[in-house]
Amino acid sequence: MTTTEILQRAKAACPALARISSAEKDAALLAMADALEAHAEPILEANRADLEQARGSVSPVMLDRLALSPARIRAMADGIRDVAALPDPVGRVLTRVERPNGLVIEKTAVALGVVAIIYESRPNVTSDAAALALKSGNVCVLRSGRQAHGSASAIVDALRAGLRQTGLCEDFVNLVEDTSRASAAELMQAVGLVDLLIPRGGSGLIRSCVENARVPCIQTGTGICHIYVDKAADLDMALDLLDNAKTSRPSVCNAAECCLVDAAVAERFLPMLKARLVDARAAAGLPPVELRLDARAAACIDGTPAGEQDFDTEFLDYILAVAVVDGVEAAISHIAAHSTGHSEAIVTADEAAAAAFAAGVDSAAVYINASTRFTDGGEFGLGCEMGISTQKLHARGPMGLDELSTYKYVVRGSGQIR
Amino acid sequence: MTTTEILQRAKAACPALARISSAEKDAALLAMADALEAHAEPILEANRADLEQARGSVSPVMLDRLALSPARIRAMADGIRDVAALPDPVGRVLTRVERPNGLVIEKTAVALGVVAIIYESRPNVTSDAAALALKSGNVCVLRSGRQAHGSASAIVDALRAGLRQTGLCEDFVNLVEDTSRASAAELMQAVGLVDLLIPRGGSGLIRSCVENARVPCIQTGTGICHIYVDKAADLDMALDLLDNAKTSRPSVCNAAECCLVDAAVAERFLPMLKARLVDARAAAGLPPVELRLDARAAACIDGTPAGEQDFDTEFLDYILAVAVVDGVEAAISHIAAHSTGHSEAIVTADEAAAAAFAAGVDSAAVYINASTRFTDGGEFGLGCEMGISTQKLHARGPMGLDELSTYKYVVRGSGQIR
Repeated sequence: MTTTEILQRAKAACPALARISSAEKDAALLAMADALEAHAEPILEANRADLEQARGSVSPVMLDRLALSPARIRAMADGIRDVAALPDPVGRVLTRVERPNGLVIEKTAVALGVVAIIYESRPNVTSDAAALALKSGNVCVLRSGRQAHGSASAIVDALRAGLRQTGLCEDFVNLVEDTSRASAAELMQAVGLVDLLIPRGGSGLIRSCVENARVPCIQTGTGICHIYVDKAADLDMALDLLDNAKTSRPSVCNAAECCLVDAAVAERFLPMLKARLVDARAAAGLPPVELRLDARAAACIDGTPAGEQDFDTEFLDYILAVAVVDGVEAAISHIAAHSTGHSEAIVTADEAAAAAFAAGVDSAAVYINASTRFTDGGEFGLGCEMGISTQKLHARGPMGLDELSTYKYVVRGSGQIR
Repeated sequence: MTTTEILQRAKAACPALARISSAEKDAALLAMADALEAHAEPILEANRADLEQARGSVSPVMLDRLALSPARIRAMADGIRDVAALPDPVGRVLTRVERPNGLVIEKTAVALGVVAIIYESRPNVTSDAAALALKSGNVCVLRSGRQAHGSASAIVDALRAGLRQTGLCEDFVNLVEDTSRASAAELMQAVGLVDLLIPRGGSGLIRSCVENARVPCIQTGTGICHIYVDKAADLDMALDLLDNAKTSRPSVCNAAECCLVDAAVAERFLPMLKARLVDARAAAGLPPVELRLDARAAACIDGTPAGEQDFDTEFLDYILAVAVVDGVEAAISHIAAHSTGHSEAIVTADEAAAAAFAAGVDSAAVYINASTRFTDGGEFGLGCEMGISTQKLHARGPMGLDELSTYKYVVRGSGQIR
């Protein structure tokens, strides 16, 4: 089927999805979760083929993003079950006012309609996105990256089988067949057929959407996350946070890419940083972190001299840009110039510095004495997530069910005129 | 100053605006309101020049939109005072969760940054938009239509004088000097300088923004509003609602443009409609409404045969498209095909028809037995409005202060890692 045909079928399925009850949606989600586990074998087989194809052409970090296992499939199914257990975000009356003229105005949560998601090589996004869309009453059109398309296709087959088992329309969950650039462009241009486009992926994809999308779009996921080590920091805590934010999962968007160190503690802290992230890791047989140092940091420790673009790069790898700054205001300025607005942290025991940082940094999540790795729907208590918005409109930070809905005003009168 | 220079000054003013207190913002708004009244004479003089220039080239309805009077200036100043009296939308903690790991996550309302508004010939938009932007902590960049630019310029001079009197930066309120198409295009493309673009105007402007905007944008105001007269309608009520929705102020976006009549009552209702909107108005010396009739309506009454495009046109004039449909589902389908998603009404005493209409019509405001003219920030109790969103993302329907803000997550920890 062409992408346009898939979109037309998706749009046509919206009224049917709007009519089913919360209980029916939840039953369908549980059936989809069961079907996913029942289809584990064909899914793993398709994933092995995807991995075989990708090997050699992508980094080990990227291969890890792509790989499925029985445990990961179980986790995906449990993720769907968790979504089923969440409250229904649509149908609720958000506010109700009775006006002096007798009009009763109810602001009511409703689904968006067709939500299209363009993503790259993480197969679990397929089931996460389908579950969140269905729960929020939206028909989804998924467009997987080429490298994970076989896995995504097997997953969608399973999810649609689950829908059929509960007697529902399988067009509530759709996968674009064409993985060329043309299909992404079609989704971006499908005014009237796509109510929300969510690109999840690297900066190239996001930029392409900003440049080309004519449908409503939410930018997600590019994370050039900073950790600022203030002069009043507990330096051991700073070390733990940097180690966690950089090395626990370098391929994800909430990993730290840049460490800013207050000049007042640079000479003490930077040797500790190198000992922990480079030397100790190498000694333990772990991949050492490559430190890319600005001139002031290079005066304190050895490392790679940073090029200007190193402070504007989402490495997604064992690489950390390091700069020395003069205090919290300079850190805020550096972040304003280089951040993607995702997540930034300050490590400090000074309340005033923490408050200045929290107020002055214009990012979706601002941390005081915690790792940037917590920017995540699950960690924020949303139950799941559709992506992390780095824009300010509609949704910011982790997007859960509420962020996948809109509202309309239902106004009841008895003949009022103005 | 060039448009880019104005945008850069606006962006640079954001941190200063973020730092001032609610009380300071309110004092500034009151000073702006007073300054507006104190500058009434130069504003009226500029408005007379604008009107002189426009006369002959625009319709009487458009001239009415453009015209100011001492009473209208007073109303604009009172509008600013009303905004000052509203609660501050930013700084509030919207939700607060403490996670099992001890992280405290506060979702906190914050300003967007620079809000740009492109509008057409209504000078009162200048003061409304400036007041709402300031109250919500945003720096505004206003781009008035050419025909109202003189009036807008005099109004902005007054507002900036008010800011100066309270010792604040006058760059919190800015007017683009260039009224050529180039300046609108510059605002649409100013990624990094414009946090939200709000086009308020006709369908050409909105379409141009959808096609060309690379900055976050909210579509507003195009209203092809429908009133559906159900077979269970009180026909006298339907007549009152249609008369009000069509003729009380035809130049505004919440005016009705199309009447759909259930076939079961068409032969009774349409002659009543013609008698009220055409014959009685002509007899009273009022402009009669031109009825543009589909074939089935034309079988009941005299009028202009409707061309296909009449059902897709925002007339903003004494013109009403009329079609006969077979019941509420057909009305919903017609609306889905022709509406701009602004406001639609059903007139019916049948609860089931009302519920089907409210659920099935995918518009910002859906009315049961009331005029579409109520879709308005003031009428909805928001105190004021920045425009009426016809999109689903971020804001839908009348946009007040909350819709001009975003949020960020401030997360406090004590060294948590993931």
